[in-house]
Parts: sequence; structure tokens; C-alpha cells
Amino acid sequence: MQVTPATTPAAKELLPQDAKFMAQFIAMAPFVFQTALCLRDLGVLNLLCENLQGMTSEDMLKKMNLSRYSLNVLLDAGESCGILNENNKTWTITQTGIFLENDAITRVNMNFSQDVCYQGLFNLKESLETNTPAGLKVFGNWATVYEGLSSLPRKVQQSWFEFDHFFSSDSFPRALPIVFKDKPKKILDVGGNTGKFAVACTQYDSAVNVTIADHPGQIEMAKVNASNNNVADRVHYHVTNLLKHDQELPQGHDTIWMSQLLSCFSDEEVVMLLSKARKALGPNGSLYIMETFTDNQKFNTARFCLDMTSLYFTAMANGNSRMYRSEEFYKLIAKAELKIVEEHPFIRLNHTILKCVPA
Amino acid sequence: MQVTPATTPAAKELLPQDAKFMAQFIAMAPFVFQTALCLRDLGVLNLLCENLQGMTSEDMLKKMNLSRYSLNVLLDAGESCGILNENNKTWTITQTGIFLENDAITRVNMNFSQDVCYQGLFNLKESLETNTPAGLKVFGNWATVYEGLSSLPRKVQQSWFEFDHFFSSDSFPRALPIVFKDKPKKILDVGGNTGKFAVACTQYDSAVNVTIADHPGQIEMAKVNASNNNVADRVHYHVTNLLKHDQELPQGHDTIWMSQLLSCFSDEEVVMLLSKARKALGPNGSLYIMETFTDNQKFNTARFCLDMTSLYFTAMANGNSRMYRSEEFYKLIAKAELKIVEEHPFIRLNHTILKCVPA
Repeated sequence: MQVTPATTPAAKELLPQDAKFMAQFIAMAPFVFQTALCLRDLGVLNLLCENLQGMTSEDMLKKMNLSRYSLNVLLDAGESCGILNENNKTWTITQTGIFLENDAITRVNMNFSQDVCYQGLFNLKESLETNTPAGLKVFGNWATVYEGLSSLPRKVQQSWFEFDHFFSSDSFPRALPIVFKDKPKKILDVGGNTGKFAVACTQYDSAVNVTIADHPGQIEMAKVNASNNNVADRVHYHVTNLLKHDQELPQGHDTIWMSQLLSCFSDEEVVMLLSKARKALGPNGSLYIMETFTDNQKFNTARFCLDMTSLYFTAMANGNSRMYRSEEFYKLIAKAELKIVEEHPFIRLNHTILKCVPA
Repeated sequence: MQVTPATTPAAKELLPQDAKFMAQFIAMAPFVFQTALCLRDLGVLNLLCENLQGMTSEDMLKKMNLSRYSLNVLLDAGESCGILNENNKTWTITQTGIFLENDAITRVNMNFSQDVCYQGLFNLKESLETNTPAGLKVFGNWATVYEGLSSLPRKVQQSWFEFDHFFSSDSFPRALPIVFKDKPKKILDVGGNTGKFAVACTQYDSAVNVTIADHPGQIEMAKVNASNNNVADRVHYHVTNLLKHDQELPQGHDTIWMSQLLSCFSDEEVVMLLSKARKALGPNGSLYIMETFTDNQKFNTARFCLDMTSLYFTAMANGNSRMYRSEEFYKLIAKAELKIVEEHPFIRLNHTILKCVPA
């Protein structure tokens, strides 16, 4: 069975029979997802990756601790989903199956889907209707996932962090030359989290000082991190609740940095945070924002993943944030009386860096 | 965004970029499914079906009780899944979206996925490892779904029955001429359920008598049904537990009928039931079996749905039954010392009727 997405905009509409298949594929997508997950986690995909010429189900059974019934029902489902092929009783893995088994980001996304989001997404409709993360009750009675993060089950936490880090880790080296072009002396990292960027800055420029503004829990982790990297003397801290209107950001920094921060907040909150930043900026200061905008992507696959990730924010995180379209986001920047003076798209493909100054 | 399944076997393998997209589409399939469900159940698809020329999101908002955030996040996700298109701020529905909104079987499948299977499928791996319906615990502590059917929440029950009936209702008129070709006098309907087929038989032939063999609960419903149709004098009952080896089927019937029954049992149980039928058959009697075999389908879409449905049996129903391949099923018939003398495929497209006699 072939299941092919055309990622080119060639055909504007599908043939009716293809659209009907796609509708059914979506209507039964939970079955498709669990089929793929079980094929991966029970070792079928691994076995077929090691035997690309193919295997019979009888040969597979000898290497697995699974009943004949279970293996056969899973193999047939896998073929119908386009993950496996069967020819003359020999099973082979398709390209799609190879990506499901071996592609790092596909693995990370799949674990995130199952461990963090699957059960809570059941309540997506309620989340959309109430603008609260109605799926989060699967794990606990918190207003946002950020409150509960440290209490999540270990496996859930692990899949959450792997997902979170996959999108940020490699972009910092590409971001530093942009941020340091104007030779900043004092950087304020808003939502600095565990201090990864702050440490990277101190290593990039031996004279720079960085202040991390964040919640107390994050600050504690950042302190350890700075100390472990022997830069504790140049990393400073500002404990704050970003969502409180009356808690301002500290002044006297020539550069403010916000990375993957604003997608965690609603439109109104983004404007408030940007206004706080504007107020805190020194006379010639600049605000650098790094975000993944859904409409600034080279590949449809990336855009697809970002649009799906927005629903995680809806159902699980806080019920009112998302991966923004640049167009919508630029309106929020203008509302906060800031203007964009530089735009650097496609940082490690997915990210965009905006340099803003007071309008 | 185009998301196209090629239902022809034209390309044997996908291009790497298409396979990568498909892998991500599967890895995030729970998001895709919930997007489609919310677009349908919050009325977006309906609105766009009534306005095929397209609408702006602002116009949609006026007709809906949804926040701007919620609508926009859903529209963007819908476009990434190939359900909607956006052009110059005008949103239109794709063919896939039209099927999701209007196609009866797609609706039935989607409700079945969400209401009956979504949550339980989370435990598919455990079901495959233990050959028990590990997902059923979402609803109650039963060994099989059949025990719990009458206690399921109303909405779950409704989606279950709509799914169940969709596949059987229309096939009986096509089956009757085949079963009545040999002018049977006494028919035994094993697993006769609510008596639908029994009543249809009495209406088809004014002389025929039909005995329904089933569990006591089903028999009660069948009695009411026969009485309502004024054929109570020609419908008889045999209370039995089909899974008990020592409870034989009644003798003296020239025809035995089993419709969509055997897919609810494991290989070993199928052989036991077929053996019971063989023993009960009169000297010139025949056994008619109506089933949906995954490899006897004209369309890939049907095969796909049947293979997915097997996983419902795995995770929710009893943990060891499935939609069979004809090839595998024929082996079970031979094991029960029966032989196939007629084969009628493609009854209302999906069903196959097999006429069997003692080997």
C-alpha cells in the first residue's frame, strides 16, 4: 500500500478517490499512530532495518517475544499505513518506516505525541472552547504545564525536555554573531531558563555580563550551570514573574534577548512583555527575538510540525499561546511601540531572529 | 498544503522528502486527528461547505462562538493537515475536508475512533504483548467489550452501534438469494444478535423457520424484534455460550448462517465454532459464512479501514480477534474439516459469502 503526501503544490486538489482515502486516513489516525508506535517500540522496524532484503513473519517471530496473532495484526496494519510492504510473504520496510525508526526529530516528535500529548489531546475541543489547557488534567490540577513540569512522571518529563531542547540547542552558535555585532556589554536574557544562552555568551565574549530574568526555580538551575562553567562572576540574576504587569524588567542593559519565549504567551501577554522590554532598554539598546514562525519555513514538513505543536500549547501548556505567523507577530511588535530594524530568517532552517528598537 | 495519498501502486517507493513528511505526519497523527475532529465538531467544515467560494477568518468568527486565538490556531493546523486551503486570507475547504464533513462512513469511523477507541488505543502495546484488550479499562473492568456493552456510556454505545451496523445492514438483501438458492426449511443463525437476519429470512420465504443461537441478553432483544414483525411463530431460540466447548449447537437445521461473527474470535475459537457447526449440520446441510476479508477488497480504502478495525479488536474488544485475510481463514475452515463449495466475493463491495459443507 502506498501512502504518499505530495509536498509540492503541483496538484491544487486531490482526485476524489485520493481525498476519500485521506479522509479515512485522518478519521482513523489514532490507529495509524499507535500502529507506527508499536511497530517501532516492539522492534519490528529495527528488525526490518537490519534486514532490508525482507523477512517472513515466521522468521520475525523467532526473534521476538510476541504471539503470532499480535505480530500478524500489526504487520497488516503497518502495510495499510504505508510503513511496511509485503510481497510474496516477505515483509520489507518502506522509506516512511525507515524515517520512523531512524530519523531523530521524527522519534522525538513521536515520543512527545505519545508521552506528553496523546491523552490530553482527547480534550482539544474543550481547550479551544475555554482557552484553558483542558488536557493537562491527565497529569495534574495545574493552571499551566509550567507549574507542573517538575512533577510530571519521569517518562513524560523526558519526552518533554527532548522535544524542547531539540528545537533550541543548535541555534545559539548561529545566533551569537548576530547578537554580538554591536559589541554589547550587558545582556538581559528574559526567560533565560537553565542559563544555556547566558553561558554561551560569556564563552563567546570574555568581557560580556549577562543577567537572567526568570522564575526562582529556573534561576536556581541557572546558578549551578554558570558555576559549573566557571563564569559565575559574569552571570547575574533577576527573579521575576513575567506575567505580572507590575513586575518590571531591570534597566541598564544594552541588549535584551528573548529566545523561544513569546510563543508561550497569548497575544496580549506578548504585547505586555515587549512593552516591559521597551521600557527597560537603554537609549541605544536593542531587543533580539528568536522565534519559529510558521510562515518562515523552507519545508512544508517543518511548517506542519510547528502548526501541530501549537495544539500542544492549546491543549496542554496554557490554552492560549502558539507558534506564530510572522505577519501576526509583527502586529504585536508594533503595538508595543517597537520597530524591526533587522530580520534574519532561516537560522538553522527553522528560526528567525528579529532585531527591534523603540519605534 | 497538499497531503496526497497515492492509492495506485504506481510508485513503489516514495521520494525521501515525501517519506520524511509522511513519517512526521504519522508521528504527529494524534494532533492531525483532533484537528479534523474539532474543525468538524466546532462547525468550521460545515461553514466552509456552505461557502465553497471561501470565507475570511473574521467572517467565520461572526458566525461562531469561538475566540480569535482558537479559530486561528485551528485553521492553521487544518491547512497543514490538507483539510483547508488559504489563499490571500480566504479560507476554503479541500476535497478531503468535504469528505470529513459529509461522507457517512468517514463520520462513523471518526466517531468510533474518538468515542470508542482513542483513549484505549493508548494501551495498544500492552494489548499486543498480553493478548488482552488492555484499552478496555478506560470504560470498565471487563474481560471483553461484549460483557460491558450495555454498561458503556451512552455516547460510546451510540458510536459503537453506528459503526457495527454500518457494516452489516445493507448486505442482507444481497445475501438472501444466495442462502435461499437451495430452498432451506430450517435455518440456524449462530450469533443472531437482535434477530435482524432472522426476520429478513421469514419475510423472504413465508415457509422458512429460523432458530437464533446466542447469549440470553441478545435472545431477549430478538424476541421483541420477531414479535414486532409478526413472525414470532417462525423464529425460535437456542440460548448458549458460544465459547463453551461443551455447549453444542442444536441439530436438525439444513442451513447454518454465521455473519460477521467469526472475526470476533481467535483462531482457535473459530476452529471450535466451525467444528460445532459441522457437527450440527444435517446430512445435506450447508454452512454459510459472511465475513469481510482484508484481501478481498476492491478498494485500498476499504482494506485500510478493515486493518485498522482489527486493532479495535486487539485493544478494546477481546485482544485476540481480527478482520481475517481469506488465505488465513481458509486454513481454519480446513482445520474444522469443512470444505468451501461456493465463494461469493464483493457482496455490497466489502463482504464475502462462503458456502461450506463437511469435507
